[in-house]
Amino acid sequence: MPVDQLTVQDLTESALLARIFPRLHHSPGVLLGPGDDAALIAAPDGRTLISIDTQTQDQDFRLEWRNGYRTTGYDVGWKAAAQNLSDINAMGGSATSMVVSLTLPPDTPVEWVEAFADGLTAAISGLGAPDCSVAGGDLGRGRELAVTVAVVGTLAGLAPVLRSGAKPGDIVAVSGTLGRAAAGWALLESEISLDSLSADLRILVDNQCRPLPPLLAGPLAARAGATAMLDISDGLMRDGSRLAAASRVILNFDSAALETYAATLEPAAALLGDDAMRWVLGGGEDHGLLATFPADIQLPKGFTAIGSVQAVVEPPGSGVRISGQTADTVGWDHFAD
Amino acid sequence: MPVDQLTVQDLTESALLARIFPRLHHSPGVLLGPGDDAALIAAPDGRTLISIDTQTQDQDFRLEWRNGYRTTGYDVGWKAAAQNLSDINAMGGSATSMVVSLTLPPDTPVEWVEAFADGLTAAISGLGAPDCSVAGGDLGRGRELAVTVAVVGTLAGLAPVLRSGAKPGDIVAVSGTLGRAAAGWALLESEISLDSLSADLRILVDNQCRPLPPLLAGPLAARAGATAMLDISDGLMRDGSRLAAASRVILNFDSAALETYAATLEPAAALLGDDAMRWVLGGGEDHGLLATFPADIQLPKGFTAIGSVQAVVEPPGSGVRISGQTADTVGWDHFAD
Repeated sequence: MPVDQLTVQDLTESALLARIFPRLHHSPGVLLGPGDDAALIAAPDGRTLISIDTQTQDQDFRLEWRNGYRTTGYDVGWKAAAQNLSDINAMGGSATSMVVSLTLPPDTPVEWVEAFADGLTAAISGLGAPDCSVAGGDLGRGRELAVTVAVVGTLAGLAPVLRSGAKPGDIVAVSGTLGRAAAGWALLESEISLDSLSADLRILVDNQCRPLPPLLAGPLAARAGATAMLDISDGLMRDGSRLAAASRVILNFDSAALETYAATLEPAAALLGDDAMRWVLGGGEDHGLLATFPADIQLPKGFTAIGSVQAVVEPPGSGVRISGQTADTVGWDHFAD
Repeated sequence: MPVDQLTVQDLTESALLARIFPRLHHSPGVLLGPGDDAALIAAPDGRTLISIDTQTQDQDFRLEWRNGYRTTGYDVGWKAAAQNLSDINAMGGSATSMVVSLTLPPDTPVEWVEAFADGLTAAISGLGAPDCSVAGGDLGRGRELAVTVAVVGTLAGLAPVLRSGAKPGDIVAVSGTLGRAAAGWALLESEISLDSLSADLRILVDNQCRPLPPLLAGPLAARAGATAMLDISDGLMRDGSRLAAASRVILNFDSAALETYAATLEPAAALLGDDAMRWVLGGGEDHGLLATFPADIQLPKGFTAIGSVQAVVEPPGSGVRISGQTADTVGWDHFAD
């Protein structure tokens, strides 16, 4: 970076905050926003959903990828918002606010921080969470860049959709994409430059850097009577296993339905010599929803059936199957190598 | 550490969580706790307070101090809870839950994480927040250890006490200690071993590692009619300046009242060749409260008058004075050196 570029160590905390605040949107549910010791948020039905998620450089994103792409502040802001909004969506709720803690190395360009705020704001409005805004936050120093968002939401009087309610006979359905963010990760970690990619492949990279969780689908599913739901953040197989274990059932995915998702990823798989189905089964970070519905209802808009729920009648117990076959659980674990 | 010690890289995320959960207390206001995509918290008056704070190793605490003391997981858990609970206290509220994101280097001992959970739980109950419990969290890897807590609370129908409501003629008062955590920091950063310290000095170190915010004082102040309030986290002068600026007034501290606080720190100051009043004026992290009250009310239990609020009648405008004299604003800024 140019030596004369303004970095965060050149500013006081309040001067840096003064550059961030004008970039944030304000929603009416935030009764008291940034500037005091805590924010005050409306919780109209007397309950509030809350979730927290951290992204750390070199763990959840690389500042510079093998193919040369440099993660922008905008990307990190977008992704931090998206993955947190997705957690509220997965309960059937709508986000009402978030608080953001940003840990910055002292040489972080101020422009990066401004772009981060823009990415947060753009994701909140672009993904369809207009009633949400940033209510407060915290700035601090560290050797590595990290962002933690805690998001708050409302169920608007509905019951939360848990992981544990799937019943034998239910339909298994997904909303959003499968494997696209994983394909994007593989492209970023390849030696193929972004400029040489077709527009279709370039979009896969965008899906990794700026994921598109289907934020209207969660409340729709809750209203339609979804029996169980979660956010696919660690991969269909791993997250499916979690839902199956919580509900003590088997999720039987239809291989033909999954092939449809894999087919769209074949060009990327061919280019990289990789396996598109591996991305569909194991790739997280698209932040789609996996949900189960009673068989006699019409699936809400945006959901596609990919299988059915079966009772556990024999070992090895609850889990996921693909067209009746036991399949290894693959996906992302933060600690196990 | 011993080479055969169990570290977080030896466990899956779920195995690590299984060691943490039994160490957490559960409060009835958490309608749905850890295990789903988001937690659900009661917000009985239709509003929720929220604040977020991160502690990063080598910024907010040292893993090993100059005097040889090694920060324990228990210390970090206690301090993370304490400083977040203090933010809710400073609005006049009571905490109802927290969500916790823990970023761990792979070689972090599992015992450290267990002690962290114990410290969180101990602070919540020991400091007087029995209605609060850990509702959820996030675990991830990083090169440096970091803890982010987002805390949620209720005002139980009261109006929030802001920084901006102080009026000329009000009494300025504090609850909790001043300068003790800063004296503890100075002892930790000295070359004087802990073992050689008297019990009185050792307690100053404890105040730094495991601060004692006066959690009952915030709601008491709100009910008594406090006009403005904040948490002294960056030092009396700096935080006082923030309150003064938000309220557009002058806070005039009485030097004799401040001397009372400094007097108790004289033994540590003498030992270190330091200035006790510097700790009282500039030291944060005791997490006491600075509040203003109408002159005609009785101060609530736990508050001590240290000055009065004056109107701004001449330059340099709002700010803090000590017995009428302009004083430099000293205290902690995360970025400015």
